[in-house]
Amino acid sequence: MGFEDATKGEIDQALQLSWQAFQVYKEYPLTKRAELMATIAHELNKGAANLIPVAAKETNLDAARLQSELKRTIFQLESYAEACIDGTWLDARIDTADKSKSPVKPDLRKMLIPLGPVIVFGASNFPFAYSTAGGDTACALAAGCSVIVKAHPAHAETSDLVAAIIKKALHALNMPEDIFIHIHGTSFEVGKELVEHPLTKAVGFTGSLEGGRALFDIGARRPVPIPVFAEMGSVNPVFLLPGKLRQDAKAIASQLATSITLSAGQFCTNPGILVGIDNESLLKFRDYLELEVEKVPPVKMLHPSIAKSFHEKRNAALQQNDVKVIATAKYEENELQSLPTIATVKAKSFLNNPLLHKEVFGTYSLLVKCSDVDEMIEVAKALEGQLTATIIGTSEEIRDRPQLINTLKERAGRLVMNGVPTGVDVAIGMHHGGPYPATTDSRFTAVGADGIRRFARPVCYQNWENELLPDALKNENPLHIWRTVNNQLTKNPVGRFPE
Amino acid sequence: MGFEDATKGEIDQALQLSWQAFQVYKEYPLTKRAELMATIAHELNKGAANLIPVAAKETNLDAARLQSELKRTIFQLESYAEACIDGTWLDARIDTADKSKSPVKPDLRKMLIPLGPVIVFGASNFPFAYSTAGGDTACALAAGCSVIVKAHPAHAETSDLVAAIIKKALHALNMPEDIFIHIHGTSFEVGKELVEHPLTKAVGFTGSLEGGRALFDIGARRPVPIPVFAEMGSVNPVFLLPGKLRQDAKAIASQLATSITLSAGQFCTNPGILVGIDNESLLKFRDYLELEVEKVPPVKMLHPSIAKSFHEKRNAALQQNDVKVIATAKYEENELQSLPTIATVKAKSFLNNPLLHKEVFGTYSLLVKCSDVDEMIEVAKALEGQLTATIIGTSEEIRDRPQLINTLKERAGRLVMNGVPTGVDVAIGMHHGGPYPATTDSRFTAVGADGIRRFARPVCYQNWENELLPDALKNENPLHIWRTVNNQLTKNPVGRFPE
Repeated sequence: MGFEDATKGEIDQALQLSWQAFQVYKEYPLTKRAELMATIAHELNKGAANLIPVAAKETNLDAARLQSELKRTIFQLESYAEACIDGTWLDARIDTADKSKSPVKPDLRKMLIPLGPVIVFGASNFPFAYSTAGGDTACALAAGCSVIVKAHPAHAETSDLVAAIIKKALHALNMPEDIFIHIHGTSFEVGKELVEHPLTKAVGFTGSLEGGRALFDIGARRPVPIPVFAEMGSVNPVFLLPGKLRQDAKAIASQLATSITLSAGQFCTNPGILVGIDNESLLKFRDYLELEVEKVPPVKMLHPSIAKSFHEKRNAALQQNDVKVIATAKYEENELQSLPTIATVKAKSFLNNPLLHKEVFGTYSLLVKCSDVDEMIEVAKALEGQLTATIIGTSEEIRDRPQLINTLKERAGRLVMNGVPTGVDVAIGMHHGGPYPATTDSRFTAVGADGIRRFARPVCYQNWENELLPDALKNENPLHIWRTVNNQLTKNPVGRFPE
Repeated sequence: MGFEDATKGEIDQALQLSWQAFQVYKEYPLTKRAELMATIAHELNKGAANLIPVAAKETNLDAARLQSELKRTIFQLESYAEACIDGTWLDARIDTADKSKSPVKPDLRKMLIPLGPVIVFGASNFPFAYSTAGGDTACALAAGCSVIVKAHPAHAETSDLVAAIIKKALHALNMPEDIFIHIHGTSFEVGKELVEHPLTKAVGFTGSLEGGRALFDIGARRPVPIPVFAEMGSVNPVFLLPGKLRQDAKAIASQLATSITLSAGQFCTNPGILVGIDNESLLKFRDYLELEVEKVPPVKMLHPSIAKSFHEKRNAALQQNDVKVIATAKYEENELQSLPTIATVKAKSFLNNPLLHKEVFGTYSLLVKCSDVDEMIEVAKALEGQLTATIIGTSEEIRDRPQLINTLKERAGRLVMNGVPTGVDVAIGMHHGGPYPATTDSRFTAVGADGIRRFARPVCYQNWENELLPDALKNENPLHIWRTVNNQLTKNPVGRFPE
């Protein structure tokens, strides 16, 4: 099955159509946006039996993993639809006029409105949850934006099937079909032209640092710059404090081995660096980890090119000064498969070698051995921006090491205590983001309903008559949403006291 | 009095010191941040008698205007300090664990934390309110960031005095003095080095499109990109619908004449384009406007270079095809003064000449004559991004012209109905921002407490023990702030039902 790259003419047409559909879509009430999202979720559920085998063939992910990913995708659509109706994300603000002031304080009312057509680039490692009908698409639709998805070429057929489901939902609801447009492209040119098009207003991307940065640069260099939110993964360091390790070395090793090898290590929150203090507990932990990791069979990776990159980066890392393999799955190396691997290095060598700080996408983790907690802090300081940082420690250890926690907080979007970074819950309390190079803008999240805000901007109505205001800002509060009225959060209509 | 440009070494030292002070400042409770801001406000008030004459000498702004600007500056510090303590801006989110789920739903708690040292570039036209202790500084301090201000060279002495007041406040409160650092620089290099420094985490700028875009580009091209929020002004179009103009031509002309000529037109919300339908009412309006504008005396502009640019741009605009002067103050042209001027042009000529769409900073406005409302919409569509758009119309006219309103909403951050765009109230309902080139990121505001969010990012705590969490996220809610607990906004402690 062949998928032709969209031509420049087709991309221009797609943006024109998307812009026209946006004009209609943005005027829909929140309930209608939510209805579209819920209908897509419903159709995805109905289509599961068709989707899973195709996705499995294209990505080598097993059916159970794909089932659970599809469930997550449906949950995202449903929960962002609920957040959409809830309307708190609109950040509605009302300051009523004060005619006693000189000059007169005008009536000011503000809410978020959608940016316009959003380009979504599907992720290789999540054919459902971060691709065609995934998190970025759901956030953009909730915000009131039209969406153009560029299918990830590694699962183009799955993407086509999901796109057909979205189109079906649009037809069923009698909505303009160009609210969602699906495009194929293997060449970088297609992405570049999509981001450069004057009608493109924002971009969501999940993938490699190289790809994300290239799109960010294109977005920033446009005559009219646009926000390009790229989530580009990280090494997700795990800091093992000695007291806790002494207590629980075995359980911690087991939990981490699972996290490291889950889905062939193909998660952006995969823990790629473990940092501990070189003592007897760490030796014990290392031995347990070895035992666990050796049991894990290699798994076919998402795509031959991803497997090739894994082996190249793994081998390059293993060839660095002072790096030693401590555990590897006992199987023949196969160029299409992951090869679960734990290596080790002394902190001094790690600190002197930036290559060792980089992500090896797949089942590879490096255990960094420090002489003491101060050296752990040095290691933490040497790290780039991260999606997550994990601290394994007793309450006392964490309380007594504010400098370590602080250093990690400066570098990460999420701080996990005595757990593992894999498993990114879809919840408003989640932050899936972090300082560069984890993402291109640490102020926004790719997971949870707060991600909607990436695709919306405030507009203020000054001195508008009540009848001419959008419902979200009318005195009566017909949408029953939370609003900040004269600096107080309330659901009350304007003018009723206490507000 | 001479102010030396900071050297590269001094800039590096400033960032190192700012970073160290940030480590202390960010750990302060919100009340302590607010105390600093309130103390600066108090000291500014006490210092008014010294500040006003110096600012008047440096900027040519009159004492009354400077008094009111200083009052605004004090109000900004006080009201953002209140917002800081209120804590709603922290976007605290709590999703409690659910052990019945498989996999177990972890406890997730999220809040905003400061980005780090922020560089603030003072504005030429607001020596107090958008300079040294102005809106960007106040937002950054509320967010928990340390601040480095680069003084605007046109009012370097005023900036020095204000900086001394901030230092005094820091000393009085026994806080590290490097929470605030003041730097001089006339060359672009100083700004470039400040934005390029690896310890710089964000930038606030108010000024020209050229200056703002240059800093934005530097920020985006860094190895680690940072957000550069630049507010760069706009032409703030005013659309005059025929029904309302027929009713109120005289009052509208009077109000607009004041807005156009206020403070020598040196506001970023100065209305630079008026759009009407070429009929008898518009002729009448034009005549009233002429009478009003002719009465306004020229005023010395902020700086000889600004006056020079005004005259150059004004003259270039007046030389364009079909542009005719309809009103100009009856005074000799003086190269240091503004010269209140209204010109007129047919919509067709305007649409064909992008030069006429550009801001002429000062007392110059262009009346664009359309044949009908459809042509007004064409004019609206031809405009770039704007801070504001104003609609003068009856309720019926506005209700019946959704396409015009919609086109303006797409291009502007604030929609004024039957008023003038000048007068940017400091309130949470205000949006002072807008699509590029009004600002570099339409999702943020430069005025109002929502501006704090420009300088903060979320961090998520997963599975943390209650005692180890920051106060904002503890079960007890010791700060008594609004939080989203299991998707419900509440001030209740966690675990009390209803939440």
